[in-house]
Amino acid sequence: MAGYPNAPPNYGYGAPPPQYGAAPAYGQQPYGAPSAPYGAPPSAADKPAKDKPPKDPYGAAAAPPPHAAGGYPPPPGASPYGNPFAALTPSQFPPGTDPSLVASFQMADQDRSGFIDDKELQRALSTYNQSFSMRTVHLLMYLFTNTNARKIGPKEFTQVFYSLQNWRGIFERFDRDRSGKIDANELREALLSLGFSVSPVILDLLVSKFDKSGGKNKAIEYDNFIECCLTVKGLTEKFKERDTIYSGSATFHYEGFMLTVLPFLIA
Amino acid sequence: MAGYPNAPPNYGYGAPPPQYGAAPAYGQQPYGAPSAPYGAPPSAADKPAKDKPPKDPYGAAAAPPPHAAGGYPPPPGASPYGNPFAALTPSQFPPGTDPSLVASFQMADQDRSGFIDDKELQRALSTYNQSFSMRTVHLLMYLFTNTNARKIGPKEFTQVFYSLQNWRGIFERFDRDRSGKIDANELREALLSLGFSVSPVILDLLVSKFDKSGGKNKAIEYDNFIECCLTVKGLTEKFKERDTIYSGSATFHYEGFMLTVLPFLIA
Repeated sequence: MAGYPNAPPNYGYGAPPPQYGAAPAYGQQPYGAPSAPYGAPPSAADKPAKDKPPKDPYGAAAAPPPHAAGGYPPPPGASPYGNPFAALTPSQFPPGTDPSLVASFQMADQDRSGFIDDKELQRALSTYNQSFSMRTVHLLMYLFTNTNARKIGPKEFTQVFYSLQNWRGIFERFDRDRSGKIDANELREALLSLGFSVSPVILDLLVSKFDKSGGKNKAIEYDNFIECCLTVKGLTEKFKERDTIYSGSATFHYEGFMLTVLPFLIA
Repeated sequence: MAGYPNAPPNYGYGAPPPQYGAAPAYGQQPYGAPSAPYGAPPSAADKPAKDKPPKDPYGAAAAPPPHAAGGYPPPPGASPYGNPFAALTPSQFPPGTDPSLVASFQMADQDRSGFIDDKELQRALSTYNQSFSMRTVHLLMYLFTNTNARKIGPKEFTQVFYSLQNWRGIFERFDRDRSGKIDANELREALLSLGFSVSPVILDLLVSKFDKSGGKNKAIEYDNFIECCLTVKGLTEKFKERDTIYSGSATFHYEGFMLTVLPFLIA
C-alpha cells in the first residue's frame, strides 16, 4: 500500500463482504468466482458508506491497488508495477482494534519504531497458535505492504491478523473430519469461498506442491493452506491489476512480468 | 520436453552456440541480450546441420518448446502452456557422453528404471562437488523436463550436468577475487554472458533475495547463483513462448499465467 497515500479508509482487507445479488454483472467474470462471502470481522471502519469506491468485481479478498479497485490514480512517477523497494508508510491501529492485538504488536515492537520485522511477526503470530515458515511470513509481509521492506506497521498487522483469523475459520469449515488437512475438493471449495475459482489442473498443481507428504496424502495442512491462499490471492490480484477491463487476459511487458512474479518466487 | 515427441535431435540444451554475427536482426530484440556465448561442450550431436530449426533469437541457453523455437506444432490437444503432469519420455545418453557421467547416472539409478528422482539427482550432483538445496534441484528438474514429474532420464541428466559446468565456469570467471561470491555488477555481467539482460531494479531484487546473509553481503554464492540463473532463464523463456513476435510484450490468459508461474513458485 505504500506509495498510495490517498487510499480510502475502507481500502483493502477489512472491507465488508459484497452483498449477495448486488452485483449480477460480475457473475460472468472470467475468473469464475462467485460473489465472495469474504470479510474480516465487522469493525467501526467497516460500515457501508455511499461514497465508497466501487466493489472489486472479482469478489476477492484483499487489497488491489486503489487505481485498479476504485479508480484512484497512482501518484505521479509511480511504476505501474509498484516499486518493490518503496518505503513503508507509518500507520496506526484502526479504531476498535482488539486491545490484545495492540498489546501483541507493542510487545513485538520493543524499540517503539512503529514497525515489526519478519522474525518479530513470526513470533507475534505464534502467540496466537499460528506457526508459519519464514517464507510464509515473507509472503504475508509482501502481500500486505506491496513492498519488500520486510516490516509491517499496526495497520498491516491488523489486516494480517484478521485475514488469518478468517482463513483459519474457512480451513476449519472445510476440514470436516478434523484431520488437520483438506483435500483437493475441499481446497477448491475453500478457495471459492475466498472468491478464487481455479481450474482442476491448477488445483492438482497446488495440492501436489503444498502437500507436505510429497504427494502421499493428497491433502494440505493449515500452514501450507495459508501459503497456498497467499499465492493464489497474490498472483490473481497482480494479474487483475493488468486486466483492467476484466477480460480474463492481461498483457505484460517483460520488465513488468519479472517484477510481478519475482517477489513471489523468492520470498 | 514431454508431450513433444517430434522434437528435433538438437532440440534444447546442448545445441551449438549461435554463430557471432550470423543473426544481426536480433541485436535489437527487446530483452537486450547480446548474441549468446552459451553452449554445452561440443559433442557428436552438436554438429551444425542445414536442416536445423532456426536458432533462438534471444540467444538464451535452454529449451523453449519446439513450436516456439522452430515452428514444430504441438501435438493435437496439447495445452499451449504445457501439461505440468505429462509423463517424462524415456531417453538415452547422447553419443560421446563422458563415461564418468554415465557411471554417475547408473549408480544413482539403482533399479535401472532409466530415471532418477530428486533425492538421487541431489546426491549424484554432490559427487561433482555441487551441493544444492532441494528447491534448486526441483527447479532444475522442472526446467529441463518441462513437467513436474520430479525425475529425469539420461538426456536431461547430461543437459543438467553440462549446464551446471558452464554456469560454474561463468561464476568463477566473474568471481574475480575468488571470494566465493559475486556482487550485483558481476551478476549483471554473468547473466548477460548467458544471454539475459535484466534491469537495475530486477538486479537489485535478485541480489537482495538470493543473498544468503539477508542483504548484508549484497552478493550471492554459487548455489544461489544457480537458483538465480534458473529463475531468470526459466521465467524469460516462458515469457518468450508467449511473445512470439519478439515485441517485448506478452499476453496471458489467467489460466496460462497461473500455470506459467506456479511451477516456479512452489518448486
